[in-house]
Amino acid sequence: MAFAPLKNDTFLRACWRQATDYTPLWLMRQAGRYLPEYVATRAKAGSFMGLATNVDYATEVTLQPLARYPLDAAILFSDILTVPDAMGLGLSFEAGEGPRFASPVRDEAAVGALAVPDMDKLRYVFDAVRSIRQALDGRVPLIGFSGSPWTLACYMVEGAGSSDYRLVKSMLYGRPDLMHRMLAVNADAVAAYLNAQIDAGAQAVMVFDSWGGVLADGAFQEFSLAYTARVLGQLKRNGADGQPVPRIVFTKGGGLWLEDMRALDCEVLGLDWTVNLGQARQRVGEGAQGKALQGNIDPNVLFAPPQQIADEVGKVLASFGKPHADVSKTGPTHIFNLGHGISQYTPPEHVAALVEAVHSQSRALRA
Amino acid sequence: MAFAPLKNDTFLRACWRQATDYTPLWLMRQAGRYLPEYVATRAKAGSFMGLATNVDYATEVTLQPLARYPLDAAILFSDILTVPDAMGLGLSFEAGEGPRFASPVRDEAAVGALAVPDMDKLRYVFDAVRSIRQALDGRVPLIGFSGSPWTLACYMVEGAGSSDYRLVKSMLYGRPDLMHRMLAVNADAVAAYLNAQIDAGAQAVMVFDSWGGVLADGAFQEFSLAYTARVLGQLKRNGADGQPVPRIVFTKGGGLWLEDMRALDCEVLGLDWTVNLGQARQRVGEGAQGKALQGNIDPNVLFAPPQQIADEVGKVLASFGKPHADVSKTGPTHIFNLGHGISQYTPPEHVAALVEAVHSQSRALRA
Repeated sequence: MAFAPLKNDTFLRACWRQATDYTPLWLMRQAGRYLPEYVATRAKAGSFMGLATNVDYATEVTLQPLARYPLDAAILFSDILTVPDAMGLGLSFEAGEGPRFASPVRDEAAVGALAVPDMDKLRYVFDAVRSIRQALDGRVPLIGFSGSPWTLACYMVEGAGSSDYRLVKSMLYGRPDLMHRMLAVNADAVAAYLNAQIDAGAQAVMVFDSWGGVLADGAFQEFSLAYTARVLGQLKRNGADGQPVPRIVFTKGGGLWLEDMRALDCEVLGLDWTVNLGQARQRVGEGAQGKALQGNIDPNVLFAPPQQIADEVGKVLASFGKPHADVSKTGPTHIFNLGHGISQYTPPEHVAALVEAVHSQSRALRA
Repeated sequence: MAFAPLKNDTFLRACWRQATDYTPLWLMRQAGRYLPEYVATRAKAGSFMGLATNVDYATEVTLQPLARYPLDAAILFSDILTVPDAMGLGLSFEAGEGPRFASPVRDEAAVGALAVPDMDKLRYVFDAVRSIRQALDGRVPLIGFSGSPWTLACYMVEGAGSSDYRLVKSMLYGRPDLMHRMLAVNADAVAAYLNAQIDAGAQAVMVFDSWGGVLADGAFQEFSLAYTARVLGQLKRNGADGQPVPRIVFTKGGGLWLEDMRALDCEVLGLDWTVNLGQARQRVGEGAQGKALQGNIDPNVLFAPPQQIADEVGKVLASFGKPHADVSKTGPTHIFNLGHGISQYTPPEHVAALVEAVHSQSRALRA
């Protein structure tokens, strides 16, 4: 399938650490409940999974934030837990609650039964990628994504969200052999899943290691980072159209481990709001292992009035400092984003203020 | 009031960065629900606050873990929210839920009405300190504590625990003037509260900045660290018996800010399990601003079998490395602890395995 040529490549250029006229931006969970039009579509779909598995609805909601704001990338509307769902764990979203698995994985037999799922069970995702890419018509690039092997394991063992990760860590510390087996299956499944998204038209892919930051030093490297690396090692480097596909890794709460993450074979590191961007830029450094940095304003800034939002945007841009401007080579680049998903309570007009502030201030910063 | 001389000063020596024969240890929330004898006392008391406000019960539960394990310090049984309760916010603990305030502080009028409470309203705490100190009979030192100004503010604004800190951060970003006013009152109240604990017999004091780690870089320094410093600046240096009182500051999730925390006027920094102790030792350094380090095993390690617990203890001790051994001067010292409070589901016999492993392995490490 041929797709329209890309009209705004600012995000992709920044991923490849190439100079850009302004700092590109997109927002984690930008298609979501803070938008009344999203709430309306979800009501039509009946449930979260009804929305995610319907190609037309998934396409509609993915494009909704782009109709309101001049964002520099779109991200596939889906959930990080589609892969364990395809493994047969039975994903559901109760009203007003988070995700829940009917069959959590808590013993040797359950771990032994895990296998990389048939990607045909996830065809609805790849169909959505193709449909969204078509609907975007080259306006901005489309990002595909998956949860990290460790983050999937958290939900697979706990069976739902957790405040203490007691069950998954009990397995990690008590039966590390089982945990390693589960993570190996997850990593191979995530790699196959992201490769199929790339084949379907994803122009960048992101691994959400949402719960890497709950691990102890040492355990993070062994049980999260190593399996993210196993995913990255299997990823296709080029999309169906022959274009190279940059890879983003975001470990929430992973700021202490940037020196370890620098060694990952990816182009972009996502950062949460606890990290000082200027310090991160120094710690990650340049050269062969240089990475673009993505992040990291606190989503709660969006509850402040527009003037304060603009002030906080200024602090984040200043913290990163001047991106490099030499078009003849690569150098430090910044992709603006939140440090975590946008809150459902965010006033939509405050997002407009954020986007405007990032674009205008980052142009001024380069002048 | 005269207290018995101290028989085990290992914890206090380590606080002052003096050489010790082994690595002292205590556990955050060591008097708690994982102990059946605690559950029995709490049932007699009827409620959490019934337990905390009754001097005999508070003394009883504080000493319970010492009857089981050769811990090197006791910590006052109380709650971090006693101070805002004394401010009139109406603290309660619903069955199966966390703390809740009847009158959260969410607007200018409510912030304006805040004041340092009459310490007489907290007399039950100081009476408990005296009673516990008496009951300890010099066996180990007694640690007093308070929540940090920022952590208190989180609960005061949210009115309960929170997963996103939306309300308190909305005030922080939208009305920083109100937040600063609340934090100033909190800091002065916490200082008065800790000083009264010191007067009553606390031999060390700890500030729990449990929610400092949810703040963005920049906001942490302005809204948490600065007010912890304001507390420390007002603290008495010596107890009623003339002995110097070391001060511990623990910011959960604060590992990225050790270079900032190094400047605090305190003796010990608490660390959670995400921090590499060896790297922290390098980053905090020695000299005038040197600090003892306290922490940091993942409490979930206690769900593994005893042999794995011992292995994980070994990793934590090795991560810190050899403490200094020269009794003629100060140097790097480590106080073993969990990286967060112990889980209510912990098997008590696993705690015994942890304590034994820390004491025996840390003696061997020095040999």
